Amino acid sequence: MLQSKLFTKTRKEAPADEVSKNAEFLIRAGFVDKLQAGVYTYLPLGLRVLKKIENIIREEMNRAEGVEILMPSLHPKENWETTGRWETMDDLYKVSDTSGRENALGPTHEEVVVPLAKKFVSSYRDLPVYIYQIQNKFRMELRAKSGVLRGREFIMKDLYSFHTNEEDLKKYYEVMKTAYENVFKRAGIGINTYLTFASGGSFSKYSHEFQAVSEAGEDTIHICDKCRIAVNEEIISDQSTCPECGADDLRKEKAIEVGNIFELKTKYSKPFNLTYKDEAGNDKDVIMGCYGIGLGRLMGTVVEILSDEKGMVWPEEIAPFKVHLLELSSDDIEVSKKASEVYEMLNKAGVETLHDDRTDKTAGEKFADSDLIGIPYRVLVSDKSLKAGGVEIKKRTEKDSRIVSIDELMTEFPQNK
Amino acid sequence: MLQSKLFTKTRKEAPADEVSKNAEFLIRAGFVDKLQAGVYTYLPLGLRVLKKIENIIREEMNRAEGVEILMPSLHPKENWETTGRWETMDDLYKVSDTSGRENALGPTHEEVVVPLAKKFVSSYRDLPVYIYQIQNKFRMELRAKSGVLRGREFIMKDLYSFHTNEEDLKKYYEVMKTAYENVFKRAGIGINTYLTFASGGSFSKYSHEFQAVSEAGEDTIHICDKCRIAVNEEIISDQSTCPECGADDLRKEKAIEVGNIFELKTKYSKPFNLTYKDEAGNDKDVIMGCYGIGLGRLMGTVVEILSDEKGMVWPEEIAPFKVHLLELSSDDIEVSKKASEVYEMLNKAGVETLHDDRTDKTAGEKFADSDLIGIPYRVLVSDKSLKAGGVEIKKRTEKDSRIVSIDELMTEFPQNK
Repeated sequence: MLQSKLFTKTRKEAPADEVSKNAEFLIRAGFVDKLQAGVYTYLPLGLRVLKKIENIIREEMNRAEGVEILMPSLHPKENWETTGRWETMDDLYKVSDTSGRENALGPTHEEVVVPLAKKFVSSYRDLPVYIYQIQNKFRMELRAKSGVLRGREFIMKDLYSFHTNEEDLKKYYEVMKTAYENVFKRAGIGINTYLTFASGGSFSKYSHEFQAVSEAGEDTIHICDKCRIAVNEEIISDQSTCPECGADDLRKEKAIEVGNIFELKTKYSKPFNLTYKDEAGNDKDVIMGCYGIGLGRLMGTVVEILSDEKGMVWPEEIAPFKVHLLELSSDDIEVSKKASEVYEMLNKAGVETLHDDRTDKTAGEKFADSDLIGIPYRVLVSDKSLKAGGVEIKKRTEKDSRIVSIDELMTEFPQNK
Repeated sequence: MLQSKLFTKTRKEAPADEVSKNAEFLIRAGFVDKLQAGVYTYLPLGLRVLKKIENIIREEMNRAEGVEILMPSLHPKENWETTGRWETMDDLYKVSDTSGRENALGPTHEEVVVPLAKKFVSSYRDLPVYIYQIQNKFRMELRAKSGVLRGREFIMKDLYSFHTNEEDLKKYYEVMKTAYENVFKRAGIGINTYLTFASGGSFSKYSHEFQAVSEAGEDTIHICDKCRIAVNEEIISDQSTCPECGADDLRKEKAIEVGNIFELKTKYSKPFNLTYKDEAGNDKDVIMGCYGIGLGRLMGTVVEILSDEKGMVWPEEIAPFKVHLLELSSDDIEVSKKASEVYEMLNKAGVETLHDDRTDKTAGEKFADSDLIGIPYRVLVSDKSLKAGGVEIKKRTEKDSRIVSIDELMTEFPQNK
C-alpha cells in the first residue's frame, strides 16, 4: 500500500486525556482514533493488525473444532432476567425502543447462546459442541482510561462449550488451554503470558486467566517460574503456593488479563433448562464452559509489552505490513523509479509492503514515522543505498542496517508464500 | 465440513410470526436464528454466505480504491446534535450510561466519519479519499416483519467519499455504480437489479438506488427495459419517463432496495466545518458522497429471488459450500468408505464440501434437506451409484442427474483453484 493513500497521518501528540502507552502510540501512529473514552475507530493500519489477530484466533478455534456463528448485540430483557443478570450486572447497557421494549447491549452471550443451543441440542448424540463468535461487545465502563485495553465497546472472541459431563468439559478445557497458548505465542507475547489460577466464583474452585506481565496491567499475579504458571493475587490468601509444584517463592508482577477460560458447569444451562437425554432416556443438565479473548486488548497488550521509546515493535504474524519501504530524496527520479520497482517486486512476491512514497517529508521524519509504526523490516531506497549497491535493510528490533542488492532482497524473507 | 458437526439442524417449521419467504427458508435450513423481531443470529451456514458476500464487497470496494476502517456503534450525542439528527431521526436508538452520558447506537456513520476526516484532511492534496467499513448498524424498526431484509440490527457496508469539487464526486459516483453492479452480478442477482432514480432530498435532484425486482419488495419501480434503468414510484410524478431515453412505456414492478448511492455534497461537511485549503490557500467545503449496501438484506434478496418451492438456490460465488455430498445407506460400509474418500478428495482439491454423513436420516430426508439448503452441486454416493459406476451428480438448478466416475468428478468443477 502507498503511504500517501493511507488516509491517516502520524501525529505528534495523542489526546491529552490518553494516559496509557498503548493509546498514545496507537493514536499517534494512526492505528486507532478515539471517538470518546473507551470507544475507538480502527484506522487502516490498526484494522490490519486486528484482522490478523482475528485470523489467528479463528484458526486456533477451528483447530479446536469450534463452529463459528455470529450473535447479535440487542438482547431481549427477558433473557437477562432469566439468569438474574438484568439486575445484578452493573455495567450492562440498557436500551429501550419507543414501544417500551427493553434490550441489553450484549457484554457477553450466555443469555443468547444457551437458548440457541436449546433449539438444536436434545440428545447426548448432539454433544459435545463448541460454538464461538468474533463479535462486538458493550460494557458500561464509567472510567475508561486504559486505551484499547479496556473499552466500553470492544471486539471479543467468545467460545461456549457444551458437554454431557464434567469430565468431558475438563478434557476440552485442556484443549482450549493449548489453543490459547498458541494464540498468545503467535501474537508474539507467548513468553510474557502465564496461565493463572483465579477465583472461580461460587460454582467452581478456580477459573483460569492468561495474564501477560506488564506494568500497565490492572492485576497482580504471583508467578512460579519453574512451572510457568501463576496465582492471581485475588486468591493468594487461599492459594499462596504454586498449584503445580507447591513452591512458595513466587515472583510478584503486574499483569494484563489477555484471556480467560471458565468452567460454567450448569450456571447458565439450569436457568434456561438446557438439558439432554442420556442413553437411558433420562433428562440431564448440559455442562458448559466459556472461553474469551479480547482482540483489541490483545493488540494493546502487544503494544504495552513490545514497544520501545521510539514506538511500536510488531511481531511478524500480526504486523500491519511486513516491510516498510522508505524512499528518500524523491526528487531524484532514479531513486523514485528504483523504489517503485522494489515495491512492485515485493507486491508480486506477496510480501505485504507499506511504501512511504511521500514527497513532502524529510528523511528524519520518515525514519521517526517508521519507528513509531513499527513494521518488522525497514527497506530503504536512497541515492546512497543505490551507490552502495542496492537497498538498506534493517529489522525494527535491531540497530544495524545492511546493504543488500535488489536481486537478493527477496531472500531476506524466506518464509513467504 | 461434516453435516453431523454443523451444530444446527433443519426444521420443519419456521416461527409462526415469520411471514417472509427469506426468513422461513433461512430459519428452516439453519442459516439464521431469530432472537427477536428484526434481530438474528447467523448460524454456521448463514455466516458462510455472509462472509462470502462480505469478501465480494471488500474486493469491489478495494478495487475502487476504498480504504477500510472500522468505526464504533456508541456515538456521542453531541455529534448527532451537530447534524440535527439527534432530534429528527425517529428510528435512532438512544442509550445512556449511569453517569448520564448519552449515546446514539449508530444507524449510519456520517456523524463519526466526518469528524474523523477532519483530523486527517486539511489540504486539496489530501483529497479525494474514499473510506469504508463493514459494520453492524442499529435502527429502531418497530415492526420488523421482513426477515433479514429489514432488521433492527444489521450489517452494512458504508463508504464515504470526500472530494474537492462536485465534478470529482460525479466521477467517483460512476466508479461506485460500476462497483455496485459488480457486487450484484457476483451475488447472482445482476440480471434482476436496476439502477433506479429516486428522491434526492433537499440537496440533490436525484439519489440512485439499486432495486432488485421481487414480490417481497417494499418499493415500486418503473423500469425501462431498453436502458435497464428504473424510476422509483416516489418520484414518478416528477419523472414519468426513462431519464435516459425518454421512453414512457415503463414496466411497473415491486422491488427490494439492495443498495443506494447518494450525493451528500456539503450536507454533513458543513455542520462539522470540514474544509480544505485549495491551491490558492482558500478554505473550501469538502464535497461528499455516500454509498451503502446491507449484507443481510442482499442475502435475503437472493433467497427471495432465486428460491423455488423446495428451498434456496445459492449462486456459486456466495453459496455456503460448493458441493453437498450425500451418503445413502450408511449401514453399507463400502458406501460409507467411498463417501469418505470422495470427501477427502474434494477437500484436498479445495472444493468446499458439506458432507451429509448423518446415519439417522432416510434418503428422502436427505434429499429434502439438500434442496432446502440449496448448495449448487449435489453429489450422491449410494449402493446404486457405485454399481452404476461412480457417483451421481446433480445441479441444484437442474432436474436431471448423471453418473460420473469418481476419477472424473473433479473435472466437473473446472474453475477450482
